Amino acid sequence: MRILVIGASGTIGSEIVKTFGPDHEIIQAGRNGKDVQVDISSVESIKNMYDQVGKVDAVVNAAGGAKFAKLTELTPEINEVGIQSKQKGQVNLVLLGMDYVNDNGSFTLTTGIMMDDPIKEGAGIAMANGAVKYFVKAAAIEMPRGIRINSVSPTIMKESWEALGSYFQGFDPAPASKAALLYKKSVLGALTGKNLEMY
Amino acid sequence: MRILVIGASGTIGSEIVKTFGPDHEIIQAGRNGKDVQVDISSVESIKNMYDQVGKVDAVVNAAGGAKFAKLTELTPEINEVGIQSKQKGQVNLVLLGMDYVNDNGSFTLTTGIMMDDPIKEGAGIAMANGAVKYFVKAAAIEMPRGIRINSVSPTIMKESWEALGSYFQGFDPAPASKAALLYKKSVLGALTGKNLEMY
Repeated sequence: MRILVIGASGTIGSEIVKTFGPDHEIIQAGRNGKDVQVDISSVESIKNMYDQVGKVDAVVNAAGGAKFAKLTELTPEINEVGIQSKQKGQVNLVLLGMDYVNDNGSFTLTTGIMMDDPIKEGAGIAMANGAVKYFVKAAAIEMPRGIRINSVSPTIMKESWEALGSYFQGFDPAPASKAALLYKKSVLGALTGKNLEMY
Repeated sequence: MRILVIGASGTIGSEIVKTFGPDHEIIQAGRNGKDVQVDISSVESIKNMYDQVGKVDAVVNAAGGAKFAKLTELTPEINEVGIQSKQKGQVNLVLLGMDYVNDNGSFTLTTGIMMDDPIKEGAGIAMANGAVKYFVKAAAIEMPRGIRINSVSPTIMKESWEALGSYFQGFDPAPASKAALLYKKSVLGALTGKNLEMY
C-alpha cells in the first residue's frame, strides 16, 4: 500500500511510520517532512502536498495543534489556533484529498481523550476533537468509491508526559507505539465512521 | 429570571420565548431582534449585544447556520459558513459573555440530531454540532461562579419539514414547542455539561 503519513516525525507519527513496516510505501509529510513539506492549517499547502504526492491508498494524519487555556482566559483568538490546525486542517485534508485517494482507500484522522475525559484548560482542544469526530462519523456515509474514514483518539502519551503530564492529573500515559496500532487497524482493517478510542 | 434569548424570532427561538412565559424577563435578540440586534458570526456584534443587555441570569442561543452540501462538493469555503456561525458563533457567546452572566446562571447552546444520526449532505453541519457538544462538555468543568452550560440537540422540526424534510428521510419531525422544553430544563434545572437530546 502507498500510505501518506502527515505529521510523520512527531511522537505518534514516527511510531505510525514504524508500525506499517517495510511492506508498505510510506510517504512522510510534515512541517519539516522527510519527503514532503506541509502545513495543514493552510489550504494552499495541502493542495501543494497532494499535487506532489499524487495517488495514495491511505492518508493518515497525526499533525495538528491546539492551545491549552483556562476557560476564563480562552479568547476567540486563542481558540482559533485549534480551529485552523487540529480541526480545519484535518477536515481539509479530506475535502481536498478525496480525488487523490484510490478506490477502497482510507483517511485516518486524530482526535484525543480530552473530549471524552475533560481536563482543565482543555475546552478549546475538546471542541476541535469533537468537530473532527463528528465530521468523520457523518462523512463516512457519503464517501465515494468505497473510501473509508476513521479517527483515532489517543490518550496522553508516555513520550509527552514530562511536557504535558501536569494537565493530565490521574491519567495513565501510554506508549505512542500502542496508539500507532489503532492507525494500522483503521488503514488495514475495514471499519469506517469510527473514532477508535485508545482508552 | 432575566433571560437573553438569541435567535428569538426563529422556529425554535419563538417557542423558547413562549415556554418561559410571563414569570421571566425575556430579552429577545437576533439578526432582526425585537430588543437587540446581533449577528453571532461577528465577535464585535456579540460584544455590542452584551454591552447593551448587561447582566442576565441565562443566555439561551437558538441562532446559528451551516450549509448542506454533498461531501464530494463540500469545499473549505462552504464548510466555513457553519464554523463561523453555528460553531464559533455559539462558542464565542460563551467566551465573550461569561462576565455578563450572574452567579449560578447558565448558558444553553444548540446542536442537532445530524451528528448522532447522520444524513446525506450533512457532514459540515455534524462537524459544527460536534464542536459545540464537546466544547460544552469540557467547558462545564471550568465554569466560574456556579455557572452551568448545556446544549440542546433538537431533531428536525415539524415547522421546518416542508423546507428541509427531503434531507431527513425516515425521520419523525417534532414540534418546536417540544424542543423548547429542553431549553427550559437546561435554564431552570440543575444539569451542566450535558447535550440534551430530543430523540
